[in-house]
Amino acid sequence: MSQDNPVIQEIRKTVCDLHAELVRYELVVWTAGNVSGRVPGEDLFVIKPSGVPYDELTPESMVVCDLDGNPVEGRYSPSSDTAAHAYVYRHMPEVGGVVHTHSTYATAWAARGEPIPCVLTAMADEFGGEIPVGPFALIGGDDIGRGIVKTLSGHRSPAVLMQNHGVFTIGDSPKAAVKAAVMCEDVARTVHIARQLGEPLPIAQEHVDRLYDRYQNVYGQRSHL
Amino acid sequence: MSQDNPVIQEIRKTVCDLHAELVRYELVVWTAGNVSGRVPGEDLFVIKPSGVPYDELTPESMVVCDLDGNPVEGRYSPSSDTAAHAYVYRHMPEVGGVVHTHSTYATAWAARGEPIPCVLTAMADEFGGEIPVGPFALIGGDDIGRGIVKTLSGHRSPAVLMQNHGVFTIGDSPKAAVKAAVMCEDVARTVHIARQLGEPLPIAQEHVDRLYDRYQNVYGQRSHL
Amino acid sequence: MSQDNPVIQEIRKTVCDLHAELVRYELVVWTAGNVSGRVPGEDLFVIKPSGVPYDELTPESMVVCDLDGNPVEGRYSPSSDTAAHAYVYRHMPEVGGVVHTHSTYATAWAARGEPIPCVLTAMADEFGGEIPVGPFALIGGDDIGRGIVKTLSGHRSPAVLMQNHGVFTIGDSPKAAVKAAVMCEDVARTVHIARQLGEPLPIAQEHVDRLYDRYQNVYGQRSHL
Amino acid sequence: MSQDNPVIQEIRKTVCDLHAELVRYELVVWTAGNVSGRVPGEDLFVIKPSGVPYDELTPESMVVCDLDGNPVEGRYSPSSDTAAHAYVYRHMPEVGGVVHTHSTYATAWAARGEPIPCVLTAMADEFGGEIPVGPFALIGGDDIGRGIVKTLSGHRSPAVLMQNHGVFTIGDSPKAAVKAAVMCEDVARTVHIARQLGEPLPIAQEHVDRLYDRYQNVYGQRSHL
Repeated sequence: MSQDNPVIQEIRKTVCDLHAELVRYELVVWTAGNVSGRVPGEDLFVIKPSGVPYDELTPESMVVCDLDGNPVEGRYSPSSDTAAHAYVYRHMPEVGGVVHTHSTYATAWAARGEPIPCVLTAMADEFGGEIPVGPFALIGGDDIGRGIVKTLSGHRSPAVLMQNHGVFTIGDSPKAAVKAAVMCEDVARTVHIARQLGEPLPIAQEHVDRLYDRYQNVYGQRSHL
Repeated sequence: MSQDNPVIQEIRKTVCDLHAELVRYELVVWTAGNVSGRVPGEDLFVIKPSGVPYDELTPESMVVCDLDGNPVEGRYSPSSDTAAHAYVYRHMPEVGGVVHTHSTYATAWAARGEPIPCVLTAMADEFGGEIPVGPFALIGGDDIGRGIVKTLSGHRSPAVLMQNHGVFTIGDSPKAAVKAAVMCEDVARTVHIARQLGEPLPIAQEHVDRLYDRYQNVYGQRSHL
Repeated sequence: MSQDNPVIQEIRKTVCDLHAELVRYELVVWTAGNVSGRVPGEDLFVIKPSGVPYDELTPESMVVCDLDGNPVEGRYSPSSDTAAHAYVYRHMPEVGGVVHTHSTYATAWAARGEPIPCVLTAMADEFGGEIPVGPFALIGGDDIGRGIVKTLSGHRSPAVLMQNHGVFTIGDSPKAAVKAAVMCEDVARTVHIARQLGEPLPIAQEHVDRLYDRYQNVYGQRSHL
Repeated sequence: MSQDNPVIQEIRKTVCDLHAELVRYELVVWTAGNVSGRVPGEDLFVIKPSGVPYDELTPESMVVCDLDGNPVEGRYSPSSDTAAHAYVYRHMPEVGGVVHTHSTYATAWAARGEPIPCVLTAMADEFGGEIPVGPFALIGGDDIGRGIVKTLSGHRSPAVLMQNHGVFTIGDSPKAAVKAAVMCEDVARTVHIARQLGEPLPIAQEHVDRLYDRYQNVYGQRSHL
């Protein structure tokens, strides 16, 4: 069946390979973070298997799930965070990729329930303002997914700090969601360190807006998108 | 003799290889941490040799000891922490693996004699509450082992912060004890960083209990255990 | 055309390869930093393409620009920071290389708009005093370049902390500018950590001067310059 | 001449290879740290060449110096810290190796001119008490060497924090001095982090003494010394 679908095969490989970026940027330890990607044109997404080490992941070990989070393919159980990913795909049709990590500095802000203020031009570029905090929510139902969607809907930021928990990021592709996770930890760390020795200088809202607008519309190689 | 015992050979290899995880997650410098594993069905365990660099370890260099910590096999002296490991195996029959490190953030909590409060869902999952502190104890007798066993007996946490010293973790296998050491440093670091800029939000005990119960019973691939 | 110019080919390779040092010293994440190098004897410089990952860079993918920042060669768009590099080359003829990063500790000082005080002998050697802060400036015109040139002209420091943004460094070669970026982050981190637990001891201006003078004139292998 | 002396050849290789440990433990950036080793039975020592990157070091590029710090062999200039190493070898005949770094946390203590208190059992083992601070001294004469020797003579610690500068360590071999440099940074980091959130608990002097005595006389494989 869909094992033979070349689109799904490609997404299996993309999602599998992107986990290496989580490891490279030290956003994860052991098996604690995961990437997923929507299958375009089908009510399916591909996600990391549960509890499998990053260096043992293969495209074949990725799990294909329907949008209720039920596995429809794959010999492994899907990530224990699958219900949250599924909720996002059901309620945010523009999202093509979701990432979850417990990256250190972002999770430290989440433990205090404190949004990260936008005091860096790179943060204005990527997040368009502060990175918001989502509610405390227990795993095992739709509470985490609902908290992510409620916090990010209509917000510029592709990242949410789930209180006492960690980070979820979204993007139009799995790669964009991974980039948001990498940048989220980078700005979480830099702003944390800045604040250790005093208050960072604010950036005027007008400047945040201009930076965000320019970055979303100009940066990078058009041919690479 | 037991050089030819294939069970011991396999445990030698497992224990040897797991030291690479201590290095990968930067829990150790030089030769300062060690892993051991119980030999099922025999009053023996396998442990790192003393003072040998991690990248020179081989299965053959591991040392087989009896439960009093006396080497019964191997050309090397066992780790200088062997007495502590032996005490744990003698008094906690459910333990199959023990790990010791001086990992930075966990040892910093230990230097202040302060338990790590449970303010992260991942910490509720793995440790079921705070990570406790054990007594100050000198090396050279049973004091360290006694402190570990007294602190961890009847406690959910598989990790103890020995005051002014470092971390000991236990598990039903050497791999589980290594995972506990990795997660202990991860939460020690995240909670430390959270507290640098204010107080983390508490997690209600009821939520800690539900997270711990779920994680211990649901997570991961059943076929992988 | 100049594809065949061996001087430009060599600079393409030098600039390309130097990005590996930014990765090695963890000064950059994703695609956020860049190196450029002037083409001696021509009104041209070579710079990183925009939005291309560091491990996909090749000498051929580097972009040759004129001193107004317009690409004259190469199939990629140049770095979005090209205008700032170009402004420096136009106004500082002694500069042969420019580097831009958002390295964590230096950017943290920049977020507070605070110069790094010269409290380390290595900092006196390399920077000859404090590392200064440049103005807040938006991308998209000459404001960033003007801020760099105004701050560094007549200053001993080859590094400037652009407020709320990151670091720009200059050198007589691309390699010298990369070295300044590496050393800038190193001293930014060490002085930050020193100040976390109290005030660092000052170094007398006379001693700073003697260290700077000696280092600029004596250190290293003469044959390597 | 002594190119053909197999003892010197072996020390060239040992000293060269040990620089990889400084890189591995991130004690150095660019070319800022160095290792040297005494040639037994001759008034000579072998040291890193000045300004050469760590991954370009070869045994042949090491420089042989007399005990006044004058190069007697090698095509490179010796490290700019050679005079300090030479002074130590002249005045401490028991020393077989010297290491210098600007490792981050140790240098942060040095910038405040504050000794590292002995609040970790591993620190009692290796250093036998606090790690002391040496005087501010300018490069270019015997001041640094004199400060090292004055501070370490009759002191248990093999490491000294030179004020506003960095770390010098000594050992009976180059490897022992490298180990001291690695452990110095490790305890500097752990005690720093412990103190960020409160005061570490002291260790009684009697316990420090017992730990130091035991470690110096029992630890490791006798056959490895």
